[in-house]
Amino acid sequence: MQDLIAGPASLRADELRHAWPLLTTVERAAGFHSLLRAEADDFFLDLRADDQVSLLRELQPAERRLWLRLLPPDDAADVLQRFEPPEREEYLALLDPVARGEVVALLAFAEDAAGGLMSPRFARLRPEMTVEEAIRYLRRQANERLETIYYAYVLDPDQRLLGVVSFRDLFGAGSDRRVEEVMIREVVSVPETMDQEAVARVMTERGLNAIPVLDAAGRVAGIVTIDDIVDVVEQEATEDIQKIGGMEALDRPYLETGLFAMIRKRAGWLSALFLGEMLTASAMAKYEHEIERAVVLALFVPMIMSSGGNSGSQAATLIIRAMALGEVRLRDWHRIVRRELVAGLMLGAILAAIGAARVIAWQAFFHLYGPHYLLIAVTVAISLVGVVLWGTISGSMLPFVIQRAGFDPASASTPFVATLVDVSGLIIYFTVAQLVLRGALL
Amino acid sequence: MQDLIAGPASLRADELRHAWPLLTTVERAAGFHSLLRAEADDFFLDLRADDQVSLLRELQPAERRLWLRLLPPDDAADVLQRFEPPEREEYLALLDPVARGEVVALLAFAEDAAGGLMSPRFARLRPEMTVEEAIRYLRRQANERLETIYYAYVLDPDQRLLGVVSFRDLFGAGSDRRVEEVMIREVVSVPETMDQEAVARVMTERGLNAIPVLDAAGRVAGIVTIDDIVDVVEQEATEDIQKIGGMEALDRPYLETGLFAMIRKRAGWLSALFLGEMLTASAMAKYEHEIERAVVLALFVPMIMSSGGNSGSQAATLIIRAMALGEVRLRDWHRIVRRELVAGLMLGAILAAIGAARVIAWQAFFHLYGPHYLLIAVTVAISLVGVVLWGTISGSMLPFVIQRAGFDPASASTPFVATLVDVSGLIIYFTVAQLVLRGALL
Repeated sequence: MQDLIAGPASLRADELRHAWPLLTTVERAAGFHSLLRAEADDFFLDLRADDQVSLLRELQPAERRLWLRLLPPDDAADVLQRFEPPEREEYLALLDPVARGEVVALLAFAEDAAGGLMSPRFARLRPEMTVEEAIRYLRRQANERLETIYYAYVLDPDQRLLGVVSFRDLFGAGSDRRVEEVMIREVVSVPETMDQEAVARVMTERGLNAIPVLDAAGRVAGIVTIDDIVDVVEQEATEDIQKIGGMEALDRPYLETGLFAMIRKRAGWLSALFLGEMLTASAMAKYEHEIERAVVLALFVPMIMSSGGNSGSQAATLIIRAMALGEVRLRDWHRIVRRELVAGLMLGAILAAIGAARVIAWQAFFHLYGPHYLLIAVTVAISLVGVVLWGTISGSMLPFVIQRAGFDPASASTPFVATLVDVSGLIIYFTVAQLVLRGALL
Repeated sequence: MQDLIAGPASLRADELRHAWPLLTTVERAAGFHSLLRAEADDFFLDLRADDQVSLLRELQPAERRLWLRLLPPDDAADVLQRFEPPEREEYLALLDPVARGEVVALLAFAEDAAGGLMSPRFARLRPEMTVEEAIRYLRRQANERLETIYYAYVLDPDQRLLGVVSFRDLFGAGSDRRVEEVMIREVVSVPETMDQEAVARVMTERGLNAIPVLDAAGRVAGIVTIDDIVDVVEQEATEDIQKIGGMEALDRPYLETGLFAMIRKRAGWLSALFLGEMLTASAMAKYEHEIERAVVLALFVPMIMSSGGNSGSQAATLIIRAMALGEVRLRDWHRIVRRELVAGLMLGAILAAIGAARVIAWQAFFHLYGPHYLLIAVTVAISLVGVVLWGTISGSMLPFVIQRAGFDPASASTPFVATLVDVSGLIIYFTVAQLVLRGALL
C-alpha cells in the first residue's frame, strides 16, 4: 500500500489503517490519538460505522462531541443506530440542534431502506433562477457540508421535484437561460421506503450517479449518491454469500464478530439441516434389508448422494445470483426449468459414464463387486442420471419457491439443497437398485 | 418501474428495457429502431457491452459507425474486446482516428486490470494556473466528452502527477490563488496493471470517487471513477458466488449464456468432484466387514457425512468472503484456526446432543437399533464432534491453502469442501465405531 502514496505525511494514517484489524480497541484509540489532526479527520471519516462506534466509546466526552459533529448526518445516523437507547440519547445530545433534527429523522428508517441511506444535505435550485445565478449560488455552497454540489435538484415551493440539473449541464449552457430550460424533467426517483438493494439496482441499470428520495407526500427528502451504492452492493453480496454457505448473515466483519454471536448464527441452520439429514437415517432404515442382502449397495451411497447435492448447489447458486442481479424474475421459472432439464440430463449422463466405468474398472482390477458387477454398474449409472437431474431441477427451483413464499432466495443455501436432495437421492438409488437387481442380488 | 419516471417520453425506452431479456436479437434490433433518437442514445449507452455487441451486429454498417462513435473510449474498448480479430479491425476502422488510438491503447490491457477499466479522457490542469483560470478552463471543457470534470489532475510537462483538485475545492478557494496551492499533493494512485478487484478495494477503503491510473513510466494514463467500481464489485461477487457453488464463473448473465457453454462450465467441476467422491466408495469398501456385521452403522453414514460438509461450507464461505473484502489476510490464518477450533467444538457438541437424543428416542419408540443402542448413540455423538470439528477446520483453512498456492480462494467451493470432508468423515466415523463398539457389535 505504501507505494501508492506520494508524500510521507500520510504514512502514519496509512500504517494505522493497515494495522487496524489486528489492534485492540484501546490500541486503536492510542493509535488514533497519535495521528496529526489533519490526518485524523480523514481517518475517522473513512472508518466503518462499527469502528467509529467502538472508537467513540474509548474517547473523552469532549472529544466525542468533536468527532461526532464531523460526521455528515447520514453517517452520524449510521453510528447512532448502533447505540442502544440510553447511550444513544447521550450521543444525540452532542450534536448541534440542526444536525440532531436531521439525524432523528434518518433514524426513523431501517438502515437498509433508501431513507436510511440518503443524505438530506443536497443542493436545491429554483426553476426561475438563471444559469449564472445557479452557478453562483452553488459556488457559494461549495464549502457547505452538502453531499455533492455536482447534481442540483430543482424544487417548487412545496419541495416537490421539478427536475434535476448537473453542474456540467449548467456549465455547458448559456448564462442567461433559466434553470427550468436546462434541467432534465424526467427524473428517476425512489420512495424512501424502498429497499437499498432495489435502489442500487435502479441506479446501476440507469447509470445514475445520484438519485432523489421522495417521502410519502412526494417531497424530496434527500439524495443517495453512487459511492453509497458501492457499500450496498458489497454488503448485499456478503449477506447472500453467507446465506448460500448455509448460515445467517453476520452483521459485522468476520474477525470483529464475537465468537458466540458467530456460533449462534451458524448453529441455527446447522441444527436445522441436521434434523433434515436425520431423514436419511430413516430412509436408510427402510432399505436395511436390501443393504443386509447386498452390502455392496451401501458403498455407493455417499458418492451418489453427493452428486445430487453438488449439481443442486451449482444450479441454486446460479439462480440465486441471477435473481439478485435482476436477470431472472419469478415469471421466468419455466424457461429455467427447460434449460436445467437439458443441463441435468447431460450432466447426469457424463457422471453416469464415469461411474459405470469406475465400477467395471475396479471389478477388473480388484474383483470387489462379485458376479453381478454389470448390473451394479447399470444401477449406479441410472441412479446418477436420476439423482443429478433431480438435484439440478430442485436446486434451480428452490430459490423460486422460497421467493414466492416471501423469503430471501439466498436462503436456498447449498447445504439446504444438498440436504433436500440427499433424502430423495437415497430413495432414487434404492428404487433403481430394487428394479435392476431384483432376482440377481436382491 | 414505470412509476419512477415522470414523463411519458421515456416509457417506450423503459418498456424495451423491461422486455429486453425475453427478446431475440432480431426483435431487439427492431425495438431499438422504434425508439426516438433522443431515447435511443441513452438506451444504447446504458446497455451492457455484450448487448451492445449483439445489437451492433444486427445494424447496417452506416448505423454501426454512428453508435460506435457514441461510446466513450473505455466502453468502446469493452465492446471491441468482444469481437475476434478480423471483425475487430472492421469495427476499429469505424472510429475516428483520435478515438481509435485511445481504444487501441486500452485494448492492450486485460479487461479486469485498472488499465482496462480506466478512461483516458480526464480533466488536466497545470500547477501555475490560477483558480479562476482553472474554473474557466474546466467550464469550457464541460461539453467535451470527458469522463468527469469534477476531479481535475494537475500534471507537469512530462504528464507526471503533481496533485489532484476537486471542482468543489476550486470553488471554495480564492480566485487569485494558484492551483498548486489548492491541490492535494498526496494522491492515491494505482498502476495500470493492478487487478480491478484491488482497485475497487483501494477506492472504497479510501472513500475516493475517482483515482488516477499510472503507466510504467509514472505518467497518468487515465482515471477510474466510482461508478465503474459498482460494476466491478457486482461482477467480482457474481464470480465468487458461482465458484462457491462449485463451478467455473460464467462470462455472461445466466439466461444469455448458451446452454452448452453453461454445461461445459459446470461439467468440469462436477466431474472432478465426482472423482473425489469415488474415494468414499473405496473408503466404504474398507469398512465392508464392519457394515456386514452391523448394518445399523450404514444408516448414519449420510447424516454424519453431511454434517461435516455443512459445517465446512459455513466456514469456507465466511473465510472466502472475508478474504475478498480484505478483512482477513493470509497471515491471519492462526487467528482463524483458534476461532474455528472453538466454533467447531461447540457446533459439534450441539449436533452430538441432538444426534444422541435422536438415537435414544427412536430406540424408545421403534426399537430399531437393538440392545447396544446406547453404544451406538455414543458412537454417533463422538463422530459428530470429530466430523464437525474437522469440517470447520478444513473449510476455514482450505481458502488459505488455495490462495497460498496462487489460486482464487473462492475455488474452495462448498461442494469441494464437502467432498474433502466426506472421505475423512467416513474414516472418523468408522474408526470411532471400531473403538466404541469393539466386543459389542463389532
